[in-house]
Amino acid sequence: MPENYSNLVFGEDVAVLAGDSLLAFAFEYIATVTTGVPPSRILAAIFELAKSIGAEGLVAGQVVDIASAGVSDVGLDQLEFIHVHKTAVLLEASVVLGAVLGGGNKEEVEKLRKFARCIGLLFQVVDDILDVTKSSAELGKTAGKDLVAEKATYPKLMGLEKSREFAEKLNEEAKDQLSGFDSGKAAPLVALANYIAYRQN
Amino acid sequence: MPENYSNLVFGEDVAVLAGDSLLAFAFEYIATVTTGVPPSRILAAIFELAKSIGAEGLVAGQVVDIASAGVSDVGLDQLEFIHVHKTAVLLEASVVLGAVLGGGNKEEVEKLRKFARCIGLLFQVVDDILDVTKSSAELGKTAGKDLVAEKATYPKLMGLEKSREFAEKLNEEAKDQLSGFDSGKAAPLVALANYIAYRQN
Repeated sequence: MPENYSNLVFGEDVAVLAGDSLLAFAFEYIATVTTGVPPSRILAAIFELAKSIGAEGLVAGQVVDIASAGVSDVGLDQLEFIHVHKTAVLLEASVVLGAVLGGGNKEEVEKLRKFARCIGLLFQVVDDILDVTKSSAELGKTAGKDLVAEKATYPKLMGLEKSREFAEKLNEEAKDQLSGFDSGKAAPLVALANYIAYRQN
Repeated sequence: MPENYSNLVFGEDVAVLAGDSLLAFAFEYIATVTTGVPPSRILAAIFELAKSIGAEGLVAGQVVDIASAGVSDVGLDQLEFIHVHKTAVLLEASVVLGAVLGGGNKEEVEKLRKFARCIGLLFQVVDDILDVTKSSAELGKTAGKDLVAEKATYPKLMGLEKSREFAEKLNEEAKDQLSGFDSGKAAPLVALANYIAYRQN
């Protein structure tokens, strides 16, 4: 853990309170700063953000992650649950909030939700692959961390080759969701998926 | 601390996460369950709730409270800041949310805000008075706790008699805010102020 983490600088109690205030401020910010959008859409965005954080979102992923620490038989389902809830859910919220505020219909929102969930999971699969295939110098952070920590990872549970196939499948599945949208407008999202899939560090 | 506090039963980490999820759920609930109210008013209510929790509200009070622990020269201003932010702000949010959702105009909302802030501070002043004037049996909890903890309290800082006068003044100031409202509709709020002022435990 870097030594400038706020819990180390200001203490655990103040760090938790800072988190609480930032969490509340996210809702305050959306409620007050969003302009040019009907209030009903802003409320829908607030609902999406709250859901992504709460007991069905980030918190669920974190609790299962904590409960899995030091457990040797973490399976693929559990690993995917953790990654979908800890990582993918925040990408999902980012993408879905844009879709909702932009006035996407239900079908469009759900396609973009699936897109985001795929690239969120993809991010983790690629992270796991890089951890065992790259040097620390190439990564810009310590390589092999997961092995040392005996963490459940995709390469550990399904092997390196199958992990790469899974990553490829997730990237395709993500981009499939974008086929019905204007290709010019979707281009940045395609580029984002490819960036996450093919990043080297 | 009772032994069934969630941090003791489930661990500090899970207790913090439970708090985060409940915090997010409060916004999810308001955004989805409120019916018969224009979305713009629901957004105004979300803004009020978020502000009461964040860095200008509850979190500010809690941080100053933490910073004041073990400090011998806590003054009246600092004590009032802590109580206004830790206690009164939540009564304020409860009252103001009702006023906002009910369609109160700005002046009405501000009067009710002041009412709530007064009874919130009143609650703490009375709490401090009861701690030094009642027995544990009368309170239903340990009396004299504040003295043992060497906590700054109103009786300690201004004496018992002046604390009683301050409590009376806060009760009057609270009820003054209600004078412009329909007296039948305001009656429960008057009763609430008196209940807080004259409670014996």
